[in-house]
Amino acid sequence: MPAKPFAAIVTVGTELVTGQRLDTNGAEIASALLVAGFAVVEMLSVADDAARLALHLKRLTDECAVVIVTGGLGPTHDDITRDAASHALRKPLLRDASIECALAGIISRHRHPDAAEQVLTQADIIEGATVIAPTTGTAPGQIIPTATGYLVLLPGPPSEMRPMLADFLNAHGSATPPVRLRSSGVSESDAQLAAQRVLGDRADVGLTVLAAPADVEVVLFDEGAGATELTRLGELVREALGDACYSSDGSSMAETVIRLARERGVRIACAESCTGGKIAAALTDVPGSSEVFLGGVVSYSNEMKVASLGVMKGSIAQHGAVSEEVARAMAIGAAGVTGSAFAVSTTGIAGPTGGTPEKPVGLVWFGIRTPSGVMCERREFFGDRDGVRTRATMYALNLLRQALLDDK
Amino acid sequence: MPAKPFAAIVTVGTELVTGQRLDTNGAEIASALLVAGFAVVEMLSVADDAARLALHLKRLTDECAVVIVTGGLGPTHDDITRDAASHALRKPLLRDASIECALAGIISRHRHPDAAEQVLTQADIIEGATVIAPTTGTAPGQIIPTATGYLVLLPGPPSEMRPMLADFLNAHGSATPPVRLRSSGVSESDAQLAAQRVLGDRADVGLTVLAAPADVEVVLFDEGAGATELTRLGELVREALGDACYSSDGSSMAETVIRLARERGVRIACAESCTGGKIAAALTDVPGSSEVFLGGVVSYSNEMKVASLGVMKGSIAQHGAVSEEVARAMAIGAAGVTGSAFAVSTTGIAGPTGGTPEKPVGLVWFGIRTPSGVMCERREFFGDRDGVRTRATMYALNLLRQALLDDK
Repeated sequence: MPAKPFAAIVTVGTELVTGQRLDTNGAEIASALLVAGFAVVEMLSVADDAARLALHLKRLTDECAVVIVTGGLGPTHDDITRDAASHALRKPLLRDASIECALAGIISRHRHPDAAEQVLTQADIIEGATVIAPTTGTAPGQIIPTATGYLVLLPGPPSEMRPMLADFLNAHGSATPPVRLRSSGVSESDAQLAAQRVLGDRADVGLTVLAAPADVEVVLFDEGAGATELTRLGELVREALGDACYSSDGSSMAETVIRLARERGVRIACAESCTGGKIAAALTDVPGSSEVFLGGVVSYSNEMKVASLGVMKGSIAQHGAVSEEVARAMAIGAAGVTGSAFAVSTTGIAGPTGGTPEKPVGLVWFGIRTPSGVMCERREFFGDRDGVRTRATMYALNLLRQALLDDK
Repeated sequence: MPAKPFAAIVTVGTELVTGQRLDTNGAEIASALLVAGFAVVEMLSVADDAARLALHLKRLTDECAVVIVTGGLGPTHDDITRDAASHALRKPLLRDASIECALAGIISRHRHPDAAEQVLTQADIIEGATVIAPTTGTAPGQIIPTATGYLVLLPGPPSEMRPMLADFLNAHGSATPPVRLRSSGVSESDAQLAAQRVLGDRADVGLTVLAAPADVEVVLFDEGAGATELTRLGELVREALGDACYSSDGSSMAETVIRLARERGVRIACAESCTGGKIAAALTDVPGSSEVFLGGVVSYSNEMKVASLGVMKGSIAQHGAVSEEVARAMAIGAAGVTGSAFAVSTTGIAGPTGGTPEKPVGLVWFGIRTPSGVMCERREFFGDRDGVRTRATMYALNLLRQALLDDK
């Protein structure tokens, strides 16, 4: 296995170095370059300063096989990426006739004649560059051959950048798509170990693990093994992850739950106390969720648990709001009020206050109602208020997923 | 006004350049440096590679008055920041006795004798550095004088980095705290214009505008005007922003709503269709929200609007679920079922499908129930599903805020 070719990422914009915008392009491109077979040596954000950018582009194109630049390709005076690249590579800018024609059409439709000359600068292409025509925005991308590889200029908006980057990497990166396995209920280090045990010491498959609270993505990518072998190893890792693995196509947990419910032709609902609407919000984030998600009750107060879900006052008085009995009654109540076959409930102590020795901060009771009955589970989560709520939300969605898979 | 001193930010970690972690330290430090009076010229992320990091630190400390480095200060072999800084500045590492003593205590408690020598490397301090003792983690920060200013080494975890950065900037940055005004219902460019009109062409006050969907923060910072004048100008900008400005202490919209309800001694609730739980989730994100937020109903299906909120079937049939009549009934229903004095409701079309010429994607009806009656508002939001839902959530929270302020 030869050493991987080097790559670098440069994001351009004064709004990045003043903290006005968080750069999300950098991490997204870094991940894409990794699975495409490159070693990213640095990620750089610079202000709208053509001279400084040109120095960095000179330095990085000398060292790296691929340098990806995003931003600074728009029509304003602040958009200095074209000029900087021209200086760094000592190649002139030439106006592209077909891009100019398309921009002229936009100018006449939008009636900004004053800005015409500025807008048309977006048609200025570095000599020898391959143009990537814009699909959603107005600025084209540019792929410029260098002595060591390519300098790639892409627009800053992620929706414009993303398809152009994919085009470039399809042509110049690894041809094998990576295997992406998403799991919940397994730690980052356990997921990594499970994958490493399958891979052994083989050097022809790359491995990276991306972690969010209660959500771990294992990515296997080709470094010489080939597509068939990568698929076979992906299956083995999926088996090793077991029930924890909820998707192998990049789908989120909520997307998976909505898909399973649609496939089974059943409706779902929720009743939330400590998660406070986060389960419902995650499910309704999915386009088309209204076909299967009937709704939820955020019963934050005890009175509302009684009034909206039919929890017995005496049950709360005897066992407390955070208890198996109340979680059970909430799940039954959610299914009853919505008419759904499946419902999940949460009641717990998110903190930072409200904990006791018997019921500490982080304790959550879950109820899951299915056509065959009601089950409850008790879990203690670590972390701050946000961490507890996020982990409890993922856990509840996972209970719904497992119920939709198991309860026939 | 002299030119601002230059600053640079370096974040260290292979997990950053492989896309496994999104770097949020960079933007946070950039914003803090801006308001402390520095011009950030670049932000750089590098892998755990001591030689490469040393080259960058040499280059940046030659040019910048302040270079902030985060990460790579832990106890493992990957933690290369101390060595790189030592090489870059040609200053030796010396073991600090008091930090070593504290670390030895941790080692004996945690019983990791094998790792003892590695853990103790965290006590290695660059000759001449001022040590910032850790409060939450184990690695100290280091402030190292350079020919042009300071090289500052901080731990990577944001909770450890943040107080150390504040310490450094309190001592070496502008002494005047910035004015932070948060607004909703005003565009980024209008907020900027409003502030610029107040500031005119004066060069002794800095201005930056941070924008999220339906949430704009105007930050004024001292560049020579002094604290009293900054406060006076902040008041004028606040007046110019008018009702749109919801906080001047950094509080979020949900925190403001919870505070106002607590101050008035009233309870609040919500009924959500298109926002699908996001209003409830935002309110319950606030610690202590259970004192005033009674709960909400996520009535995603028409049946649930009827069953849980008492919306009339005939009303939905006649006017449609997305209508003034249904929004009104949902707000009344939410107040009724929870027993709250104030309640807000949403019903709309988040997309991507479901729009018609009369009721396009992005249309949302809001209801707001107060002790003096019920009001409804119709709005059309742009953006994709997530954008419409986020903007509708902020709009609904803002309706609650205004009702809590106005309805006496």
